[in-house]
Amino acid sequence: MVATAGIIIIGDEILSGRTKDSNINWIASQLDGLGVRLKEARIIPDVSDNIIETIQTFSNKYTYVFSCGGIGPTHDDITTECVAKAFNQNLYKNTEAMRRLQLHYEGTNIEFNEARQKMAIVPTNSKLIDNPVSAAPGYRIENLFVFAGVPKIMQGMFNSILNDLTGGKKLKSKTVSSNIGEGLIAKDLEKIENEFSNVKIGSYPYFKPGSFGTSIVLRSEDELSLEKASEAILEIVIKLGGKGKILDGNEIDDRSL
Amino acid sequence: MVATAGIIIIGDEILSGRTKDSNINWIASQLDGLGVRLKEARIIPDVSDNIIETIQTFSNKYTYVFSCGGIGPTHDDITTECVAKAFNQNLYKNTEAMRRLQLHYEGTNIEFNEARQKMAIVPTNSKLIDNPVSAAPGYRIENLFVFAGVPKIMQGMFNSILNDLTGGKKLKSKTVSSNIGEGLIAKDLEKIENEFSNVKIGSYPYFKPGSFGTSIVLRSEDELSLEKASEAILEIVIKLGGKGKILDGNEIDDRSL
Repeated sequence: MVATAGIIIIGDEILSGRTKDSNINWIASQLDGLGVRLKEARIIPDVSDNIIETIQTFSNKYTYVFSCGGIGPTHDDITTECVAKAFNQNLYKNTEAMRRLQLHYEGTNIEFNEARQKMAIVPTNSKLIDNPVSAAPGYRIENLFVFAGVPKIMQGMFNSILNDLTGGKKLKSKTVSSNIGEGLIAKDLEKIENEFSNVKIGSYPYFKPGSFGTSIVLRSEDELSLEKASEAILEIVIKLGGKGKILDGNEIDDRSL
Repeated sequence: MVATAGIIIIGDEILSGRTKDSNINWIASQLDGLGVRLKEARIIPDVSDNIIETIQTFSNKYTYVFSCGGIGPTHDDITTECVAKAFNQNLYKNTEAMRRLQLHYEGTNIEFNEARQKMAIVPTNSKLIDNPVSAAPGYRIENLFVFAGVPKIMQGMFNSILNDLTGGKKLKSKTVSSNIGEGLIAKDLEKIENEFSNVKIGSYPYFKPGSFGTSIVLRSEDELSLEKASEAILEIVIKLGGKGKILDGNEIDDRSL
């Protein structure tokens, strides 16, 4: 069975346009590399009912759920109390989290006050997630991983839970870069997709000064089908009077033909 | 009544991490300027059931819904057939859309073939949205605005529907920039938020080499409350031994104090 995932971004500052989210794209790329299929991402406000409902919906639907944001020390950080409610758990001050935070603030001129101690409070039946950047841990509860919203901290946390994730077979990908319009090749692409049912094909037009073209991205677990389908598409591009080349998944498409 | 909004981003390429969405942040900023409150954004795959269900949910919940992506000429562009199903409408080839596309392709060496004519097909009871970039129109149906996914085209379409949007009172904002930690001021911020119930307060820690601090963002429809609350927070920052300054909504915080 293929592992699936959902991402929940919690924060008014994203919805007001003040802050540009970069966590979705970063996690999406990581999951793609691990063979976990990201199925959905939602950006929701700092509102309890929304957070609880979204956590429950995602937790039931997907293998893994990742939330980002709302676990800091201030009054608008309400993620942890919502997580506890979503999974019907209590909150408690975790001794190990307290120890890590104490160590972190020791010898600094920052007081480890009540507000900061809030960051050691987690739901019962959760497991701490290391925070290599600023000590205050995230945590895992059932299939939900609760991360901070600051990208660097979130990335550190994600990297420390890699062993908890079991991916499916990794999707391999190839790109046919071409200098023909999307509308010209549309009909033939449909035929190729019908012929290779185990290859997923997406087409992405691009425009740059003086030229345009279409990148056709193929994804499949099966390398042979991927290769055959890519070659079939390249043939079509040439038959249609265009130029094209086949790129491997991680090659950069410089769009030179 | 305050107008609300939801954004639906449709596209496997965003969920695979291949493409970084920039439409959410752009639309969010525009809506903020118009006094429309963005309540939620979802990124969903090119899967009919997901698209139909999300459109129906959002259309019932929010004043305005914006969808981006999936209205091009290829087989993976299924947004329009989903929109028609979601609103129980039929599809038809729109004469005005055909005329615009014909004009656009006239005198180019691009053939206005069957695949490209697909872009003139829209649901019954919809109203075309101008596309100043590449002619193929978007459309409005009930409270849903259907845009292309390519950022420049989407932005052109958004700008051409501005007169269709009625915002609420615009939220004004101020930022108290400070050099103190988020955890130090957390307790006092809660007091201020209780005192000024019509001011929404968010706190955003920042770190840069050699320094750290907290930006406290206040948003309110009421300018006087906003001013008073900002000054109260600045006083607290100073009382706590820090430095701070108050910035107006559109001033850049260079974090120099």
